[in-house]
Amino acid sequence: MPTQESINKGREVLEEYFGAVPGGGGELDDLMKHTVGSLFGEVWSRPALDLKTRSMITLTALIVLGREPELRIHLRGAHNIGITLETIEEMLLHLAHYGGWPVAVSGQRIAREVYAELDKDE
Amino acid sequence: MPTQESINKGREVLEEYFGAVPGGGGELDDLMKHTVGSLFGEVWSRPALDLKTRSMITLTALIVLGREPELRIHLRGAHNIGITLETIEEMLLHLAHYGGWPVAVSGQRIAREVYAELDKDE
Amino acid sequence: MPTQESINKGREVLEEYFGAVPGGGGELDDLMKHTVGSLFGEVWSRPALDLKTRSMITLTALIVLGREPELRIHLRGAHNIGITLETIEEMLLHLAHYGGWPVAVSGQRIAREVYAELDKDE
Amino acid sequence: MPTQESINKGREVLEEYFGAVPGGGGELDDLMKHTVGSLFGEVWSRPALDLKTRSMITLTALIVLGREPELRIHLRGAHNIGITLETIEEMLLHLAHYGGWPVAVSGQRIAREVYAELDKDE
Amino acid sequence: MPTQESINKGREVLEEYFGAVPGGGGELDDLMKHTVGSLFGEVWSRPALDLKTRSMITLTALIVLGREPELRIHLRGAHNIGITLETIEEMLLHLAHYGGWPVAVSGQRIAREVYAELDKDE
Amino acid sequence: MPTQESINKGREVLEEYFGAVPGGGGELDDLMKHTVGSLFGEVWSRPALDLKTRSMITLTALIVLGREPELRIHLRGAHNIGITLETIEEMLLHLAHYGGWPVAVSGQRIAREVYAELDKDE
Repeated sequence: MPTQESINKGREVLEEYFGAVPGGGGELDDLMKHTVGSLFGEVWSRPALDLKTRSMITLTALIVLGREPELRIHLRGAHNIGITLETIEEMLLHLAHYGGWPVAVSGQRIAREVYAELDKDE
Repeated sequence: MPTQESINKGREVLEEYFGAVPGGGGELDDLMKHTVGSLFGEVWSRPALDLKTRSMITLTALIVLGREPELRIHLRGAHNIGITLETIEEMLLHLAHYGGWPVAVSGQRIAREVYAELDKDE
Repeated sequence: MPTQESINKGREVLEEYFGAVPGGGGELDDLMKHTVGSLFGEVWSRPALDLKTRSMITLTALIVLGREPELRIHLRGAHNIGITLETIEEMLLHLAHYGGWPVAVSGQRIAREVYAELDKDE
Repeated sequence: MPTQESINKGREVLEEYFGAVPGGGGELDDLMKHTVGSLFGEVWSRPALDLKTRSMITLTALIVLGREPELRIHLRGAHNIGITLETIEEMLLHLAHYGGWPVAVSGQRIAREVYAELDKDE
Repeated sequence: MPTQESINKGREVLEEYFGAVPGGGGELDDLMKHTVGSLFGEVWSRPALDLKTRSMITLTALIVLGREPELRIHLRGAHNIGITLETIEEMLLHLAHYGGWPVAVSGQRIAREVYAELDKDE
Repeated sequence: MPTQESINKGREVLEEYFGAVPGGGGELDDLMKHTVGSLFGEVWSRPALDLKTRSMITLTALIVLGREPELRIHLRGAHNIGITLETIEEMLLHLAHYGGWPVAVSGQRIAREVYAELDKDE
């Protein structure tokens, strides 16, 4: 199991990216411990790529693989750290040519929904 | 068919990215005309994302989708515009968690082969 | 950006395929300009494959890749140009063996929903 | 078309796996005849792998390919033959590393929903 | 196991499509019995879609899913029943927009190799 | 970075599975540290699923996703812990229906090659 130190480090990254730790207060199940401790605490926390770059390549992976629920989550992070909808839409036009039109069209619909909802809350 | 103006613009982007237009002198078949004119001339050429960012999200798409021959080609572009192997390897460690370990392990092998070959030529 | 001529040509193809241009009256965003102008105006419009063949290979791609929202859209086009539900179901039985049973079973459910809705409207 | 004997054999396997034949009483369409007769009657019925193993590799395929509606169906079978939610969650933690985190996180959400619903009914 | 009658029917279809039954004389293993008897004998043999249409949607599935070894095999069938390389290339330009450029570029390279080899043999 | 304790635990699992740690003596790069320490030391080592089950679901994921180089590696592990070629072939016939025929046919070819080579060495 990831160490408590890694989990703490992961919580910091999650807070910086999303503005809050998702499901932050409660007990973590094993998959969440690995997500927070290993994925965020030991990978996302590495300084070799900055947070914005990590967000953009994660969004790219989620778009071309068609992973909608996780794309919605990471779009919230992207919005929080200042990646604009214009940037996302430019990525989608580009990625239409590598993952195919359908993932770009779906991605655009989702991105607009998430950003509209978040902008309304501000 | 893409216009000659778009094809010329695409050639410029290809030259900036790869250092040379692949198959540059010859007659273009229709798929290549669309690749050069539409994909590079009308998409990659847009200023809303810089060349390095376009390269990184393209590499990401190719890695997580497991598109090996095209990954080799874009790694040559990445090398040419100064994206280091360290950056690629950091992306691969990150993307292992989104596309799965197998695409990262394969991607690492390919990236090291391409960079070693290009570094030898210099 | 695709030329106005390509966009006009794309609109003609979209009208022939879907019976109407989706979102036809409004201003097109950049992804839609590329969809209408480049994908429909410069690719779907090429005479080397007829509209029915283009529809059938597009449906095939969407089925095996599991792209549901776009499959719904192209099923409307298929219905409009006279591809029968029997043909779609025969394709699904065939494609179950190439893309796997799950994409065929999902595709069948979606195709029946779309055709039932369209037949009701007639 | 699969023989009536294969269809009968398939119905037996479906009953053992799901507790009931889905859509059991009605006329089968052609895709269902192939599903019941060929897939269940001639493949799932083979003794070389037991039912629990077939269920677990099917769940694995559906998880890593992101086939949600079919995953829900097979989770009902898994529940019926005594595969616990703990086993499914352990598989998901493992498969996160081969199919990527997004399919594991989605799979976990779906598995918990299906098991909670089925446990409530008991 | 598929019946001998289905296997015989499948052999007929394979002979019509490929000009010869691959591995025709020998004993079939179980996967081949299902391929010949179930897939070719009970699906490809159905008159609801003609052989050329079945070949084209199979090629489409193999192209967008990036299944190279099987694509090579079905290109031999396509060549045998008179689908021209021009038709395949037109399909690839179209499918670049649905499965992404990389599968189209790879598909084009493979198609040209297979057709060049077969045309040389004639 | 994964702890030394996790890396040691991972080495034990790798040795049990493969009979030897791949690249065992040398310095591990970061991706390998995560592979050995996190994936094998903190996931594969968990007692909730036994080694044979973990191998079978890993093989399943690699087969349906078409990850050939990693499939070859895990087939060596499967062979080492006593999973027979007959079991692998039965899985492939089953998985043909979930991931599609092409991944099963390719998987069969690869499995036979790897097992033949390993059996020859004994």
